[in-house]
Amino acid sequence: MGATQKKAVVLSSGGIDSTTAMAIARAEGFAVYSLSFRYGQRHVMELDFAHRVSNALEAKEHLIVDIDLAKIGGSALTGLFEVPKGRDIKEMGREIPMTYVPGRNTIFLSYAMAWAEVVGAADIFIGVNAIDYSGYPDCRPEFIEAFEKMANLATKAGVEGKIRFRINAPLVCMTKAEIIRKGVELGVDYGMTLSCYDPSQEGKACGHCDSCILRRKGFQEAGVLDPTSYL
Amino acid sequence: MGATQKKAVVLSSGGIDSTTAMAIARAEGFAVYSLSFRYGQRHVMELDFAHRVSNALEAKEHLIVDIDLAKIGGSALTGLFEVPKGRDIKEMGREIPMTYVPGRNTIFLSYAMAWAEVVGAADIFIGVNAIDYSGYPDCRPEFIEAFEKMANLATKAGVEGKIRFRINAPLVCMTKAEIIRKGVELGVDYGMTLSCYDPSQEGKACGHCDSCILRRKGFQEAGVLDPTSYL
Repeated sequence: MGATQKKAVVLSSGGIDSTTAMAIARAEGFAVYSLSFRYGQRHVMELDFAHRVSNALEAKEHLIVDIDLAKIGGSALTGLFEVPKGRDIKEMGREIPMTYVPGRNTIFLSYAMAWAEVVGAADIFIGVNAIDYSGYPDCRPEFIEAFEKMANLATKAGVEGKIRFRINAPLVCMTKAEIIRKGVELGVDYGMTLSCYDPSQEGKACGHCDSCILRRKGFQEAGVLDPTSYL
Repeated sequence: MGATQKKAVVLSSGGIDSTTAMAIARAEGFAVYSLSFRYGQRHVMELDFAHRVSNALEAKEHLIVDIDLAKIGGSALTGLFEVPKGRDIKEMGREIPMTYVPGRNTIFLSYAMAWAEVVGAADIFIGVNAIDYSGYPDCRPEFIEAFEKMANLATKAGVEGKIRFRINAPLVCMTKAEIIRKGVELGVDYGMTLSCYDPSQEGKACGHCDSCILRRKGFQEAGVLDPTSYL
């Protein structure tokens, strides 16, 4: 598509969802600007996976931004709490989980918006998902829409009418199994991805945190062989 | 007001506007949680001024968060461009200035929202100002309103109805002179503040960048002695 290829900033965590969102952006013809964050997460190894995924999907650039969520506090993913293990899937759906990080997707999308303005991308892809028991308020379509409206008022490019930002959340209404099937259809190798909140130093998944449980179930339901290395 | 004193997160840059916003929050009876950012700004010294102001206005806490705007690029305030000097005030109003930082207030407010959720503050104060030639899209009331809507959809506290976030922008329709008069009325010592985009190592203002020009004019129009140390 040459010099005029349309650009998208894709939030990339090295997990199933963001990797599938990136594959969808590629399939729609976007040049991908992959954006990840070092935010004091316990599972900082996800950044290596995000980098591998960005290369495999031929991202034009992979930017890792350092942010300081741990200083703000309030979550098991950045703090001293234990990551919950072995929970029942029904229990996960009942409340907003301890692994909720206040403001995380808002902050991530704000950086994505800023970078999109700088590189001239109108589209931002985020692999959020409102079903499958995630329970995070900043994964719902109403949040995504409100963010999009705000973004078009926040930026020079938006206000001058040069860019009309779109926040694409193509997975928002898909189950984990549907996401996996979609990715497989697009040729994604999920062996490159990491979902675990508490992986070993060699990058093996614990198999028992909420994220591992949902991932395992997703592969089962999709009827796809789970390529994950579990401890 | 004791244990039940209401809390506000106040974005604090050590300049006239955020200092006045903080004084207004105090006058309205809020316990102030002052939030500043080390974002690769050339005028990083503003953080010392923000700290002094936070102490003088008896903030409960002053949190400085490190963020990585320079990596995203696109602005004279974080990049290698020269800060424009000696511009005519009319020229400043004509276009969005080079000192525009893509996404800055969106990112700042996102952190403020996250911290507000953690400390249990419903109110966020930001000293933005839509007049006096600022020209920044993320200083306008329509942006502030859109952010507020989004914040109430983004957070656990908002969604569960525990907090209804309000983004307070009390200066949005005030001229610099009105802001200064308001601050003086509330007892603010503007000698503690720094506005300059390009100060000396001793914290003296250059006197010639857009920010210095607007500040100087503000004191003149307010009929208040300018306490600034200029080079």
